[in-house]
Amino acid sequence: MLVFVFVLEIIGTVSFAISGAVVGLQKNMDVFGVSILGLTTATGGGVIRDLILGNFPPVAFRIPAYAITAICVSLVCFLPAVRKVVLSNKNFYNKVLLITDSAGLGLFAVIGVKIAMEAAVSRNLFMTVFVATMTAVGGGIMRDLLAGDVPFILMKHIYAVAAIAGAVVCALCWDVLGNNLSMILGAAVVFAIRLLSAHYKWNLPRAQSAENNVKL
Amino acid sequence: MLVFVFVLEIIGTVSFAISGAVVGLQKNMDVFGVSILGLTTATGGGVIRDLILGNFPPVAFRIPAYAITAICVSLVCFLPAVRKVVLSNKNFYNKVLLITDSAGLGLFAVIGVKIAMEAAVSRNLFMTVFVATMTAVGGGIMRDLLAGDVPFILMKHIYAVAAIAGAVVCALCWDVLGNNLSMILGAAVVFAIRLLSAHYKWNLPRAQSAENNVKL
Amino acid sequence: MLVFVFVLEIIGTVSFAISGAVVGLQKNMDVFGVSILGLTTATGGGVIRDLILGNFPPVAFRIPAYAITAICVSLVCFLPAVRKVVLSNKNFYNKVLLITDSAGLGLFAVIGVKIAMEAAVSRNLFMTVFVATMTAVGGGIMRDLLAGDVPFILMKHIYAVAAIAGAVVCALCWDVLGNNLSMILGAAVVFAIRLLSAHYKWNLPRAQSAENNVKL
Repeated sequence: MLVFVFVLEIIGTVSFAISGAVVGLQKNMDVFGVSILGLTTATGGGVIRDLILGNFPPVAFRIPAYAITAICVSLVCFLPAVRKVVLSNKNFYNKVLLITDSAGLGLFAVIGVKIAMEAAVSRNLFMTVFVATMTAVGGGIMRDLLAGDVPFILMKHIYAVAAIAGAVVCALCWDVLGNNLSMILGAAVVFAIRLLSAHYKWNLPRAQSAENNVKL
Repeated sequence: MLVFVFVLEIIGTVSFAISGAVVGLQKNMDVFGVSILGLTTATGGGVIRDLILGNFPPVAFRIPAYAITAICVSLVCFLPAVRKVVLSNKNFYNKVLLITDSAGLGLFAVIGVKIAMEAAVSRNLFMTVFVATMTAVGGGIMRDLLAGDVPFILMKHIYAVAAIAGAVVCALCWDVLGNNLSMILGAAVVFAIRLLSAHYKWNLPRAQSAENNVKL
Repeated sequence: MLVFVFVLEIIGTVSFAISGAVVGLQKNMDVFGVSILGLTTATGGGVIRDLILGNFPPVAFRIPAYAITAICVSLVCFLPAVRKVVLSNKNFYNKVLLITDSAGLGLFAVIGVKIAMEAAVSRNLFMTVFVATMTAVGGGIMRDLLAGDVPFILMKHIYAVAAIAGAVVCALCWDVLGNNLSMILGAAVVFAIRLLSAHYKWNLPRAQSAENNVKL
């Protein structure tokens, strides 16, 4: 179980580090800015989760593996060959960002479920899902705030909705399917919802376009 | 006492949720963005307060009532009929934002006083007022940062000043007037200072307009 | 030892308060906005450090000296005579910001090393340096986010690198040179790296200028 979760965490860390690093590349940051953004995106959600649950110091500060992974991934993204490919094509950049951000979102949501389940004295679905969602979206919010963008979570179709759906699925299946299967299922739900919503351009109603429909 | 405080908390939550939701409407966010902004504004200050005082997990994560209230209020703000009224008139929008933000500010300041008083081993006026002010302004700062604005607290006339004044009044009256009366009085002070300062356009001196006065 | 560390902390607090206040002046904030920005910059890093290490409530909330120092310094910066000098000359403003920000960065890095060393059950170089770096950069990140700028740490040449270098030097010398000497040495390393890099315009490679070099 522990190795399995660690592998998921590392995949999530790599995904979010890539998403942070490519935003840094796009914003023309130097090699250190890109690394900081990769590191913050990859570890931010977990730090928020540990602060909420009262786990001190947060695991990202205790175990170097996460930070080192995130920084190495960011440095790889900065290599001229990689950078050229990512930046040469706005479409490709957007696709990389969508896929890595969605993978990180799904994986950190289910890891959040697991840690909230273990930490909570009583199992409370609301708290588990809320903590899992914060774990999932925290890194991306930090990335977007630091980079000077309005966070994805407020602007992208079906972002936190996807994280919540996956966390609920994972939490509800926890005792039925076993932990590992629940985590894979939950992460897959998040990933699928995000990719489908991007592909089919699903959108929730917007305040002012909808405004037009109501014939202001 | 407990019911009384809970009622104040719910009124504060509703107020801040409205202030967050109308900013989201103004920024043309979708229904989920509006809900997230309402939720963050309503619960952000309390989460910061609980982190500072070492109450884990923060009450907003333990008790669903606050989050559910904030989300329902945000959804109501998103209803076409409500949205149309709020957005059709910039003056009306500003008035809604002023009143709800001021009410939330006052209520969360005095709730912050109460919780700091109970948490602190020794009653320390400085810490009580500082924690109360963070409780009051935290949600609004998060709202403005997420929405990509420079926070109210740095730009609006008499914002944190009002929260500090109300917290000091509440803390000083605590043993004299009793808790409930002190909380009502403190919240009323904040609300009154905010509305009066907005109505009479009280302003603290500004760096560069004042700059002109000193004949640069 | 305690007096020595307290003196370093106060010098760091004064430095960071100035750096926050002058950004507030530049952004044309009122006297309260300037004070809040000075206060946040001066105490933000320490609050983040205490949250990470699980010290509740953070020392800035328990001991009024830091907040009072930061607010008094901000008010002095707002005096017309001081303000006029700082704002009349963009070069002078930039120099003040560079020197105060670098001094604060260095001092808070080594104070972070000290507190992490004392807090950690086991001395772990990674955690010590990570916590020290967060202590050093936290206040400046908050200042820049509140003021609506992309944080220094992502854009300035050799910013977090300097903090990390100083923290490593301080931590490695801790048992060899004694605590006080290690702290002075570490802070001096940070300060020197920052000033030298600004003077000689050292830059780490940037994503897109470097991009041009690889003949996109």
